[in-house]
Amino acid sequence: MYFSVMKSTPLIAHFETYLPFEEVEISLIESRISRRKLKRREHLLVNGDICRHYTFVVKGVLRLYGIDPSGKEHNILFAAENDWIYDITSFHEAKPGESNIQAIEPSEVIQIAQQDLYHLYVNIPKLDRVFKVITEEKYVELQNRVFQNISSTAQQRYTYFYEKYPNLATRLPNTQIASYLGITPEFLSMIRKEMVQGKTKK
Amino acid sequence: MYFSVMKSTPLIAHFETYLPFEEVEISLIESRISRRKLKRREHLLVNGDICRHYTFVVKGVLRLYGIDPSGKEHNILFAAENDWIYDITSFHEAKPGESNIQAIEPSEVIQIAQQDLYHLYVNIPKLDRVFKVITEEKYVELQNRVFQNISSTAQQRYTYFYEKYPNLATRLPNTQIASYLGITPEFLSMIRKEMVQGKTKK
Repeated sequence: MYFSVMKSTPLIAHFETYLPFEEVEISLIESRISRRKLKRREHLLVNGDICRHYTFVVKGVLRLYGIDPSGKEHNILFAAENDWIYDITSFHEAKPGESNIQAIEPSEVIQIAQQDLYHLYVNIPKLDRVFKVITEEKYVELQNRVFQNISSTAQQRYTYFYEKYPNLATRLPNTQIASYLGITPEFLSMIRKEMVQGKTKK
Repeated sequence: MYFSVMKSTPLIAHFETYLPFEEVEISLIESRISRRKLKRREHLLVNGDICRHYTFVVKGVLRLYGIDPSGKEHNILFAAENDWIYDITSFHEAKPGESNIQAIEPSEVIQIAQQDLYHLYVNIPKLDRVFKVITEEKYVELQNRVFQNISSTAQQRYTYFYEKYPNLATRLPNTQIASYLGITPEFLSMIRKEMVQGKTKK
């Protein structure tokens, strides 16, 4: 029992940043989750799969990406420690999706399968509130990203990314950040060099 | 009482597409909402305001847009009948936002103020579930939009918009759709002409 609590602590601690949970609720949550380790470059989800889990990142960084008709990969979002990653369209409609989820670093995740999440929603109604807020937070991220995409130069987009996610900006390979910003790695290197030299205004 | 029910019917009908509600719950919801008519081009929210309402569109079309440092407007999303519009960042943090909300057509909306929404969440817990699903649906829209933005040509983005929102594509002025797609109205006209002539493959 002690070990079981220890094992899922990061997820419970995450939920408790939103609302307190009773011991019995924590036990129920723990009975419905699974833990998984991922090697670097290992995929959790591949284009055409049905996304059957909500995935919580305990350690590492994962990316959600799409592939365009020419075969080029485009990063939609990253998720590091204490963040969630899933293809929400595929998950809710339980049909094959167009997204891919891959570990960029060796990672540890906690997963909740669709039927378990629905079971938890029914038995612990306040999880509806918790996931409402989590989804709202992810929504804010995406809305800012849409606005950046349609209104900003590549330099401004990188500055925004750097200020918003300093940890990711210094931790991720250039190729991954460039794919997120929609530019080439070479152009990103140039922007970074100019920022260091103080030529790019923030 | 009869008139009150009549007045908010579209919102209750919308909620009941997710879950059934009791009479007493419907009355409580109705006591916490307000109705508002908007002229064409009238603003519900201006850059720098705090977004204090969730707004449900009964009739008409509204747009959420941002203004870049050069003063250019960029449409983030549209909301027509039975859809929601709000600046979620400003709403939840109760601080001035960077977004604008404007009626594109003469519109009728139902609004729920922040304190009323929180009151309703406490007294009708299943509204947490309803708004979780509503937010998830909006999230799906935005995620598709991000992927389109970073991976597709203007033609592909318009085709996607046209297929996904045929009603909006034929109803909105070219300038508004162009601002959503991140292209000039002239370029959009060219794309539309090519589509009609069958030169653009879907």
